[in-house]
Amino acid sequence: MIDICLLGTGGMMPLHYRWLTALFVRYNGRNTLIDCGEGTQIALRKKGWSPKPVDVILFTHYHADHISGLPGMLLSMANADRTEPVHLYGPKGLARVVGSLRVITPDLPFELVCHELNEAVETFPYPGEEEMTVTAFRVSHSVTTYGYSLSLSRKGRFDPEAAAGLGLPKPMWGRLQHGETVEYEGKTYTPDLVMGDSRKGLKITYVTDTRPCPSIVENAAGSDLFICEGMYGEPDSEDKAREHRHMTFDEAAKLAANAGVKEMWLTHYSPSMTHPDQYMDRVKKIFPEAKAGKDGKSIVMRFDDEDEE
Amino acid sequence: MIDICLLGTGGMMPLHYRWLTALFVRYNGRNTLIDCGEGTQIALRKKGWSPKPVDVILFTHYHADHISGLPGMLLSMANADRTEPVHLYGPKGLARVVGSLRVITPDLPFELVCHELNEAVETFPYPGEEEMTVTAFRVSHSVTTYGYSLSLSRKGRFDPEAAAGLGLPKPMWGRLQHGETVEYEGKTYTPDLVMGDSRKGLKITYVTDTRPCPSIVENAAGSDLFICEGMYGEPDSEDKAREHRHMTFDEAAKLAANAGVKEMWLTHYSPSMTHPDQYMDRVKKIFPEAKAGKDGKSIVMRFDDEDEE
Repeated sequence: MIDICLLGTGGMMPLHYRWLTALFVRYNGRNTLIDCGEGTQIALRKKGWSPKPVDVILFTHYHADHISGLPGMLLSMANADRTEPVHLYGPKGLARVVGSLRVITPDLPFELVCHELNEAVETFPYPGEEEMTVTAFRVSHSVTTYGYSLSLSRKGRFDPEAAAGLGLPKPMWGRLQHGETVEYEGKTYTPDLVMGDSRKGLKITYVTDTRPCPSIVENAAGSDLFICEGMYGEPDSEDKAREHRHMTFDEAAKLAANAGVKEMWLTHYSPSMTHPDQYMDRVKKIFPEAKAGKDGKSIVMRFDDEDEE
Repeated sequence: MIDICLLGTGGMMPLHYRWLTALFVRYNGRNTLIDCGEGTQIALRKKGWSPKPVDVILFTHYHADHISGLPGMLLSMANADRTEPVHLYGPKGLARVVGSLRVITPDLPFELVCHELNEAVETFPYPGEEEMTVTAFRVSHSVTTYGYSLSLSRKGRFDPEAAAGLGLPKPMWGRLQHGETVEYEGKTYTPDLVMGDSRKGLKITYVTDTRPCPSIVENAAGSDLFICEGMYGEPDSEDKAREHRHMTFDEAAKLAANAGVKEMWLTHYSPSMTHPDQYMDRVKKIFPEAKAGKDGKSIVMRFDDEDEE
């Protein structure tokens, strides 16, 4: 299972009733933050969580409302006595930007590992979690900006009858089930002998600060949850969205429909939009599983039949 | 009159129920901010004020909880179409620190004028307000840190009988009253001929992130309002205060008593202190006019007999 929390839903400037857009993802004791604007650490703390266990921060781009909270977040992690390294990912320039911002937090008791993205699409393993992969894909904003997909793979089902048929002692079954090749009485046994085909995993895609573009549809395809910016909800706001390199709710809903995602949450609202909910009837006509994100909106995502296991 | 608002009262880290310590001072259409930690722009906006008209920002020092909100604040000022210059004051290194933080707000439609403080005590005129002077004085923290006094002078009372006795036409009286020297029928008339001795003005002193030290007593002397850090309220917390280069409530109250100030507000509370009020009975025994500052606590300060004019 993956635990998701949309910490904030605001764009441009933090408001006292709406934190800046950021996503928190918890899986298997590893914690990921996507973007870290001013106040993100407050939103995290309000949720009852500490900034200490943030292992990975993915940055979409370096406009202030997406990274201005980094120095304070790092300081709070330091004050919470974190010592494990923190991995940062973001467009080219990451080390320079982070280095500059650290002028006010020069001494940290943990290592910051900066990974800069250079290609249009890059897929890499999540640090320390072999079942999780991250795909970063370039989108279309006024500066270089990436969207992210987090994909959790799922092994096939273990077949105890097949294992019994091999004549292996039962204590060795678990090693095969966990992907290990086993030697026993001169013979070699591989995991595929006891494991079914890999099953459907989980996929979350996060996209903000962009115009609609083909890479979003390609990379969000088949997501269980698609979190997408919608700066403007009002009808006829497409010109404004185009001018500021953002999206309307309708444009986001069309992307969701085209990518065949299961569910979409809108976020990154313009400060002038006080009630995003009011536009959802129209949006749901384009994509019925669209939801207006709210600060603190959470979901626990499970594999299809995870409860049965 | 001067309008004062303590925007936040927290130290170290911003909390959703307590913004980081910062002071907002409004006088004659000019607006001053002392310190700008993460979330200060939100506190300002919550109060119903825009960041646009901030003319001067005074920094006590460059620990993240006192300056981490600067990039977001500048961005919000830019988004509000500010074009007038903003004057920044702070310890040596100001231009370097501000320059580094601006990596995420490189383009601003207004000029930032950095004034670095080098001496133990520096007094300078407030930009554009001749009645107001600022005194910056070095205090005692783990890094170079300054306290600030804002002093508003007040001219003497105008004496209409003296003016009449000079034989000057009445339309010229106002020029003398406003400090101008006037020539009339070959004679020179100076303002002191019609103005009484200058009267008591107003003085506000702001001190945070320091141990008690003589410069605080010297420079806070006679303040109408003394805003002072009190990181720890619990009895017997002096060792902890000394270790972290901060103050207890009691130490702050002793400074207030020694400096002969009219009123003191405590601020910059440790995140572990949820109810500063509970320690105030003891503190008031040391200095009766001590108040526990609260986020948004405001006061309009007037000259002694200002309402009579």
